[in-house]
Amino acid sequence: MSNPTSIDYTLNAQQLPTRWRHPLADLPWPLPPVRDPNKPSAAEIMRRVRPAAMLRQNQADPAWVDIPEPVRERLIQIGRPTPLRRALRLERALGSTARIYLKREDQLLSGSFKLSSAVAQAYYCQQEERTQVVSETGAGQWGMSLALASRMFGLGCQIFMARCSLQQKPYRSHYMQLLGAQVQPSPSLSTRIGRELLKERPDHPGSIGSAISESIETALGGSAAYLSGSNANHVHLHQSLLGLETQAQLQLAGESDGPDELIACVSGGSNLCGFMLPFLRHKLSGRPLRMLGAESTAAPRLTQGVYEYCGSDPAGYTPQVLAYSMGRSFVPEPVHVGGLRQHNSSPLVSLLRHHGLLDAVAYDEQEAFAAGRLLLQTEGLLVAPESAHAVAAALASVQTAREQQRQPCIVVLVSGSGMLDLDSYKQVLL
Amino acid sequence: MSNPTSIDYTLNAQQLPTRWRHPLADLPWPLPPVRDPNKPSAAEIMRRVRPAAMLRQNQADPAWVDIPEPVRERLIQIGRPTPLRRALRLERALGSTARIYLKREDQLLSGSFKLSSAVAQAYYCQQEERTQVVSETGAGQWGMSLALASRMFGLGCQIFMARCSLQQKPYRSHYMQLLGAQVQPSPSLSTRIGRELLKERPDHPGSIGSAISESIETALGGSAAYLSGSNANHVHLHQSLLGLETQAQLQLAGESDGPDELIACVSGGSNLCGFMLPFLRHKLSGRPLRMLGAESTAAPRLTQGVYEYCGSDPAGYTPQVLAYSMGRSFVPEPVHVGGLRQHNSSPLVSLLRHHGLLDAVAYDEQEAFAAGRLLLQTEGLLVAPESAHAVAAALASVQTAREQQRQPCIVVLVSGSGMLDLDSYKQVLL
Repeated sequence: MSNPTSIDYTLNAQQLPTRWRHPLADLPWPLPPVRDPNKPSAAEIMRRVRPAAMLRQNQADPAWVDIPEPVRERLIQIGRPTPLRRALRLERALGSTARIYLKREDQLLSGSFKLSSAVAQAYYCQQEERTQVVSETGAGQWGMSLALASRMFGLGCQIFMARCSLQQKPYRSHYMQLLGAQVQPSPSLSTRIGRELLKERPDHPGSIGSAISESIETALGGSAAYLSGSNANHVHLHQSLLGLETQAQLQLAGESDGPDELIACVSGGSNLCGFMLPFLRHKLSGRPLRMLGAESTAAPRLTQGVYEYCGSDPAGYTPQVLAYSMGRSFVPEPVHVGGLRQHNSSPLVSLLRHHGLLDAVAYDEQEAFAAGRLLLQTEGLLVAPESAHAVAAALASVQTAREQQRQPCIVVLVSGSGMLDLDSYKQVLL
Repeated sequence: MSNPTSIDYTLNAQQLPTRWRHPLADLPWPLPPVRDPNKPSAAEIMRRVRPAAMLRQNQADPAWVDIPEPVRERLIQIGRPTPLRRALRLERALGSTARIYLKREDQLLSGSFKLSSAVAQAYYCQQEERTQVVSETGAGQWGMSLALASRMFGLGCQIFMARCSLQQKPYRSHYMQLLGAQVQPSPSLSTRIGRELLKERPDHPGSIGSAISESIETALGGSAAYLSGSNANHVHLHQSLLGLETQAQLQLAGESDGPDELIACVSGGSNLCGFMLPFLRHKLSGRPLRMLGAESTAAPRLTQGVYEYCGSDPAGYTPQVLAYSMGRSFVPEPVHVGGLRQHNSSPLVSLLRHHGLLDAVAYDEQEAFAAGRLLLQTEGLLVAPESAHAVAAALASVQTAREQQRQPCIVVLVSGSGMLDLDSYKQVLL
């Protein structure tokens, strides 16, 4: 490189994309139909509790969706476009033959990529004159993001957070409360399904699934709009900025051939889909592009799960979808990686996996946190435990490339900051 | 403004200043002489424990100091230049007639402005073939920063952290440990002075002063270099980037007349001096520029202290300096603002105050954290409790300007992120 200090490839506010790319736009296959046998149907429940804009954006067209100007203004306020950083120090420490880039979503105000969709959804709620939102959160990144976005658009906010994550990461709950949000551990005593789960198992650690059920039950019983931070097409749509920005930044970095490998952690898949799907056209046109999802061994859906119809929440408010799953009754161990503790994957991620477009690998806590520590010690960057799974996968890819004497361009999505996960780092590593 | 979304005034890596401005360069008066009656003298002790570069940079000349290229590279890696953000949302919420800008040091990798000096000092230690450093920290921002910088330059690192802050902010300690640093609460049992302080008062909450004594005692008894994160001229020198960058950024923002008011929190004064002293020439040339330091009512040196000779540490390793002080035996209450808990100010800050160049105001925890919450709720920015004191002062200045129908340009230094202070926010506000 002509100047070794140029390690950030940044876009200015004016270069923020003006349109989102729809996640289904480039998909060669339709999403499999859902199974929705209950009365009322899950579709009917979603019609009642979801903002209309979200239901509309879950449909396939148009391929490009204009970003409303008030949303763009907020996206700039929260820190978009985020930087793409060349990880030269990590490369040197590894003796890497690969070029490693980090897409730094940790730089957003709430410390996580989740904020980009939260801002969009809160805007649409305001447009539809909703005054209150309710949602679930696993590790709390979505909860923090939605609490902030709700405040921005003048909405009340109620969050159900998986009980074990709330205990492990109390700071995230304080943050939401400072913004005026109401936070409850899930399972809670304030919903029917919460009481049932606690009756079955008084020490139930909770999960995203239990929090989904409680959130929908709350929305059905009141006036709040029910929002989601992952899994749904409209969320993947909003997160397409991750991939679109990365494409422009790789051009700035002189990577005109595009990436050879994209790596992201994966649970509901919104960071992975938002980051990778804008590149899908290139892959389908024959370019050798590896897409790799890193999951937790605590919920190894893509590597050990079964591709089957399964619901996403214990109360059955959501339809049965065809997805890689550990089974609906599976309750992941209370590991420190709350964002990856869900029993099933999303239909879209699963479809990519089923058709061989997406590779997957699972890491345990020890491996993931150790990879995170190495990134801190080389790049000075402390990433969320979820993101650390992607870093662990990148380390393996770098090693393979070196052994095979290849010089690939690898882009790793840093989905969030690990500052509020320091107690988890301590529990696992210190 | 032509484009309301342009709220960040950013410099690229190439625009990072190539020189530091010396804090004494523009001072109309010399610093008062120190009193140094002990044997060995404090000067002799400092000669033994300080890196030679630090002793040299404490002297007055030259006015400009070239930044070594390896330091510049690291400054870019850690996030310099940091953005200057126009706080339009806060302005609207306040009905402000003032233009409010935030200099965002929270964006640095360790979450605090301290990292800029830590990187420089660690570099000089490496150049002088030191292999180990020891230092004190109050709230932990300097400790985190030094732990990261030490790792960057291959140095071992030992940190004494004020005991009450360590209990309030354990995440900061975990961060240092992940980087391989050894962290101890001060007072500790591993030094003579620590044991004495604990004998006098077994529940001693510690302070920056106690941690200074223990750090210097440790350096004297071994081979570690003793480093400081504030108070000394070489630290103010390194932090001059804050003011130099701000000057360039205000030009970008169209503020060609420069600021009307600069506001920073103040303890040892490195963020205040680094931010404000590059503007001193303008003020001394007759431009009406208000410089305002915000301190804590738990240690109200500048507003209620006495300008007198006083030592900075209970063991008396440091010389007696002429400064605003609460008296050497003053132990501040264990408030949640560890960075502002020191019994005396620095000689340089005190001189500015004594000659009427620096205004000062004190806020209690409740006022400061409430100001921090308002900034979070409007700008989405969670600042350190120390920085929240500066925000509280800015709110008062905005109100005064509105009452007087003035339209000043106010620049507030956000010295650090409050993510790791969320438990303190909770204790005070929730």
